Amino acid sequence: MLTVFGSIALDTIRTPTKVLKRVLGGAATFAGISASYFIKTGLIAVVGKDFPKKYYNILAKNLDLRGFKVDNGKTFHYDGSYDKTLSTRTTLKTELNVLGNFKPTVPEEYRKSEYVYLGNNDPKQNAELIKEFDNVKFSMCDTIEFWIAHKKLSVIKMIKSVDAVVINDEEAKLLTKEHNLIKCAKKMMNWGTKYVVIKKGEHGSLLFYDDVIFPSVAFSLEDIVDPTGAGDSFAGAMIGYLANKRNTNLSTIKKAVIHGNVLGSFAVEKFGLDGILNLKKSQIEKRVKHYEKMVRF
Amino acid sequence: MLTVFGSIALDTIRTPTKVLKRVLGGAATFAGISASYFIKTGLIAVVGKDFPKKYYNILAKNLDLRGFKVDNGKTFHYDGSYDKTLSTRTTLKTELNVLGNFKPTVPEEYRKSEYVYLGNNDPKQNAELIKEFDNVKFSMCDTIEFWIAHKKLSVIKMIKSVDAVVINDEEAKLLTKEHNLIKCAKKMMNWGTKYVVIKKGEHGSLLFYDDVIFPSVAFSLEDIVDPTGAGDSFAGAMIGYLANKRNTNLSTIKKAVIHGNVLGSFAVEKFGLDGILNLKKSQIEKRVKHYEKMVRF
Repeated sequence: MLTVFGSIALDTIRTPTKVLKRVLGGAATFAGISASYFIKTGLIAVVGKDFPKKYYNILAKNLDLRGFKVDNGKTFHYDGSYDKTLSTRTTLKTELNVLGNFKPTVPEEYRKSEYVYLGNNDPKQNAELIKEFDNVKFSMCDTIEFWIAHKKLSVIKMIKSVDAVVINDEEAKLLTKEHNLIKCAKKMMNWGTKYVVIKKGEHGSLLFYDDVIFPSVAFSLEDIVDPTGAGDSFAGAMIGYLANKRNTNLSTIKKAVIHGNVLGSFAVEKFGLDGILNLKKSQIEKRVKHYEKMVRF
Repeated sequence: MLTVFGSIALDTIRTPTKVLKRVLGGAATFAGISASYFIKTGLIAVVGKDFPKKYYNILAKNLDLRGFKVDNGKTFHYDGSYDKTLSTRTTLKTELNVLGNFKPTVPEEYRKSEYVYLGNNDPKQNAELIKEFDNVKFSMCDTIEFWIAHKKLSVIKMIKSVDAVVINDEEAKLLTKEHNLIKCAKKMMNWGTKYVVIKKGEHGSLLFYDDVIFPSVAFSLEDIVDPTGAGDSFAGAMIGYLANKRNTNLSTIKKAVIHGNVLGSFAVEKFGLDGILNLKKSQIEKRVKHYEKMVRF
């Protein structure tokens, strides 16, 4: 199985065409649901007493919730606004609420997970949590600007403790103080992780392993309405695909990246979580085929 | 044969590591020399009396110069400075000099050219010049912000008069007033051109034809020293490859785009023109193979 540790949020998302108020979001939600198309996925996450029943039902339908906790207090709330081109998001509010005091632990039933995804959580928590698993075959983490700015040494330690890092291009540059993405990736691999995946939004991603670079384009879309969660969906689908194949050779990892691109493309086509909810496996397979045809020359 | 109409410049290029003063540059120089690896290429261009003999010799070695003119006055001079990430260039001076009054004509010997590349010249000049060719099989033009801002209607007319447009992403957005690159391309195709190639620098390019989208990544490079001329090299190699194959079906055009990516990657590895000068054909073929291997999954 796959375990995903990350945030569940109530998101307020302001796009040029629509404002969503307190809708189900968060890195673990997007990553977990995307992964769930490929493998049984368990969640380690916390919400507050205000977490709506209908959102709980969505999670319960798709995910194993033995690691899901309801704490006294309010659910993590994020409020952000996109510019008219959807390329820049301004954060208006980040209310950590129950997330601020969450002490994650790995439920007994998850300890045998061979695949573990650590979202953009406190890097120290991520590095501690991964030790609680007995038999990890492939672990992957994300990180964000906030941790790079405030806990850079912990971020580097966390990177040392996982097999793969998935990170945005701007954050990779910020973390490594390099401009060139190959140099960024080399630095992270020197810190001790084997694989680095740099996400470039609409420009796709770069996978690095040893001396291998695998650049891949994003699936081209004409109508994008809400980029929220695309990167988390990418990461979830990528590790979910690997867990399903029970294989982490380079060829499988490349295919996993392609599946990441595909789930990322579903995510941005609809508002909030709608793009990745209730997909049919055949829809995903069809888009993967379409992707393969698109890039062939 | 292929005819290239465009600027020859003396470039002053300020990069973080080196300043080049009045070195050989210009869109036609980069496009022409890149194309010359694939096909005999004739130049329609003008320089001033100050144009150094050593630069003339470089052009004469690689290109047919029956359309090359020396006018009274000084050669076009461009002066620009890159930021430390090499991603933004600030123009310090643009001295048109002899370029300002140039009246291009097609020499008798070029009129039978089946392939024609019109650089980022005055769009009216481009649209007039293309009519002077007797038997064009594939014509392609570029344009820049200056013409979009000052002669937008002429740019649209020019686009109608060619088979393909090659244009930077930011300029495509500016010209079409669309944010999404697919929408940008559709608008340009609606204006009457069959193919659109949107260049995205380090993120590669997108080729559009009818309902087909062909995204391709840039060749990944760790050491980039000077991005000058990469886009022109891309365009020159692309149309040079087509001219060599004497074929413009979609599959050949896709391969032409890959060759464009490859020559663009050579261009940025060294300063000024050095990256694309004196390449061996085997070096180009080797990098194409490397590219194919890099993107395979």
